[in-house]
Amino acid sequence: MTQAQTYAAAGFGANVPRGRTPAIVVVDFSYGFTDLIYPTASEATTQMVATKAICDAARAKGFAVIFSTIAFHPGEVDKLPWLKKATGMAALIAGTRLVEIDAATGIQPQDAIVTKKGASSFFGSTLASLLTGARADTVVVCGATTSGCVRATVVDAVQSGFNVLVPADCCADRAQAPHDANLYDMAQKYADVTDSADILQWLDSLPAKS
Amino acid sequence: MTQAQTYAAAGFGANVPRGRTPAIVVVDFSYGFTDLIYPTASEATTQMVATKAICDAARAKGFAVIFSTIAFHPGEVDKLPWLKKATGMAALIAGTRLVEIDAATGIQPQDAIVTKKGASSFFGSTLASLLTGARADTVVVCGATTSGCVRATVVDAVQSGFNVLVPADCCADRAQAPHDANLYDMAQKYADVTDSADILQWLDSLPAKS
Amino acid sequence: MTQAQTYAAAGFGANVPRGRTPAIVVVDFSYGFTDLIYPTASEATTQMVATKAICDAARAKGFAVIFSTIAFHPGEVDKLPWLKKATGMAALIAGTRLVEIDAATGIQPQDAIVTKKGASSFFGSTLASLLTGARADTVVVCGATTSGCVRATVVDAVQSGFNVLVPADCCADRAQAPHDANLYDMAQKYADVTDSADILQWLDSLPAKS
Amino acid sequence: MTQAQTYAAAGFGANVPRGRTPAIVVVDFSYGFTDLIYPTASEATTQMVATKAICDAARAKGFAVIFSTIAFHPGEVDKLPWLKKATGMAALIAGTRLVEIDAATGIQPQDAIVTKKGASSFFGSTLASLLTGARADTVVVCGATTSGCVRATVVDAVQSGFNVLVPADCCADRAQAPHDANLYDMAQKYADVTDSADILQWLDSLPAKS
Repeated sequence: MTQAQTYAAAGFGANVPRGRTPAIVVVDFSYGFTDLIYPTASEATTQMVATKAICDAARAKGFAVIFSTIAFHPGEVDKLPWLKKATGMAALIAGTRLVEIDAATGIQPQDAIVTKKGASSFFGSTLASLLTGARADTVVVCGATTSGCVRATVVDAVQSGFNVLVPADCCADRAQAPHDANLYDMAQKYADVTDSADILQWLDSLPAKS
Repeated sequence: MTQAQTYAAAGFGANVPRGRTPAIVVVDFSYGFTDLIYPTASEATTQMVATKAICDAARAKGFAVIFSTIAFHPGEVDKLPWLKKATGMAALIAGTRLVEIDAATGIQPQDAIVTKKGASSFFGSTLASLLTGARADTVVVCGATTSGCVRATVVDAVQSGFNVLVPADCCADRAQAPHDANLYDMAQKYADVTDSADILQWLDSLPAKS
Repeated sequence: MTQAQTYAAAGFGANVPRGRTPAIVVVDFSYGFTDLIYPTASEATTQMVATKAICDAARAKGFAVIFSTIAFHPGEVDKLPWLKKATGMAALIAGTRLVEIDAATGIQPQDAIVTKKGASSFFGSTLASLLTGARADTVVVCGATTSGCVRATVVDAVQSGFNVLVPADCCADRAQAPHDANLYDMAQKYADVTDSADILQWLDSLPAKS
Repeated sequence: MTQAQTYAAAGFGANVPRGRTPAIVVVDFSYGFTDLIYPTASEATTQMVATKAICDAARAKGFAVIFSTIAFHPGEVDKLPWLKKATGMAALIAGTRLVEIDAATGIQPQDAIVTKKGASSFFGSTLASLLTGARADTVVVCGATTSGCVRATVVDAVQSGFNVLVPADCCADRAQAPHDANLYDMAQKYADVTDSADILQWLDSLPAKS
């Protein structure tokens, strides 16, 4: 069997149902990941433009827009094994510019910001509670990087009880091969991989949140 | 910059410190994932042999060996969005042979079995509490599939506070490209990717758990 | 200030908003907690009758009814610190009658059963994901014991993003003083404490789940 | 049977084993809970003195000292059901004095501060990962309030795999009856309730963390 046949036989790749109450989760579009003066960043200019369009459309309908950022308290750094493997992440200290959300995303004061300490925006954070409290049924995940924090967030989003959509043109990464490989995995197993035009059209079709 | 240079500059790929109290986590080597009569399975014969050797060595030293299995209560199936995307997983019903750990792993009665409902062996399970309660500091992750449940488990293991090691010859997958791509991601960002010979040698060097 | 004045000044005791999609969570009405032949049980006969009425009404409208039970794999017992403090809980071994849901609750095959390893039905379980996946907005918590697993479940339910209601006549405990003290804490800080007549009337007023 | 006999028969109230690597968790001794100019506060002066002594002794031996604080991003307030029940908590906005740890605790720059959004210092935070990463085996819980966030934190600490000790003279509350009732529940089911003199003597007996 080809890989495509094996995956189809295993029951992967079905279409994700779309609900009536989306929420947008923007993963780690903080300067540490978007401004190329920092070694942890990747080029994300067009991805932030596409993400901003989605966030603006969602906000106009009353849907939740939530950003995540990695930010460590100095007292945490020696305790977290992840920082011994991914040593560059230890630069993301609370209060520095690296952990601030990039203004190019168009973030607004009413958008919640979730602080996290690992790859997933859900792990050790209140994101699932916020999305449940907002009565979201479908989560659109944008951000950086595709092969790291976006992937981990997508896996946790579907595990947390949400339908998940990933607009690929809203996802940035440091290298093309991991970006593509992870979009493939996500599309087969966890989420529908689509683009921002499709998400905008879908948001446009929905009634505003009452 | 090359991809290797970009990743090195970002501070990825450092070596994982190894503690004194390992635990072995064997992900989803249940018949539904190991017996090719089921469409959800992948070839895992040699991977289970290598995993059994590690489990035997760990058990002999008094270290925890924990297996995970996916098993759904019928009343859960309509509530979990993952089963709408990865439809084949819905066959893994509690009480069926598909959710039973493959005897080829050499599982023993004293090995805890954690039941899970998604990709990660940690998500919505008591695995982190069991490992913490066993005072483990380093988690060796084996199982299936590399690009799905092993990857998700590895990400959560390091987020949960453990050093993580992945013996590649103990990890099975349905296709080579996702297997390789995910080992690459894990080796860069979350775990040391090694082999069973290295793990056996390391286990042999450790004092038994008091 | 009196205690009532102090609590009012602190902003406690407000009424919980009620949504349109309740779910019923029945905590630990397994024989180990309901059949007085076991030392871990408490008298729960009338509480199970009242709980059954709520579950029947919810089910008839298409709302989720989820039971939890404590059940340990033998390989877990030596790893969980709770079992060193609450030693009687170690008798709740998977596969025994103690962990089976009491038939007096009227449990039905389509009701999901969540297995847990501690006080809260949410901790280390998939309950939050199931409730979110069922698009529940309001959780009614019944079960045993009020001062232990019900209290812990209620705290996690509101933390997980749900409005929480507790019908006091559906909650059993081993002793009156802890029962009363915990209902007081819950009513002030986490949930509306009400009775089954009120819940039945509210369920009756809701449209069936579409 | 008396209540004491019922509880003893159920296997409650055993002594908690003490490990070799304690960590101190100080719950919500932020000004919003300690300075009586705020309606959410309780009198905590002597409790902070006793807590400071424990933290100083632990730090001198190299053991982790971690503080928690409740702090909401403005974009979270409308999404969290807890803030509709415990309305006074919504005043705890990030960046205000209310969420700052009281200097009377003697907090030091190397002490990690965990931000939380509910009663438990573990829920939706990275506290369990930090404690596991620090290889703690025993958690000493101090703070405010006994009947709210301390109780919830203690329940989650034992569920997370730690032995738990509660020095009662380090725990503050708004009223005596809930303080006493919750110490009783904790002592029976989740933790050893002791005092700061005992904790100091125990810390003194331990070798420094290597």
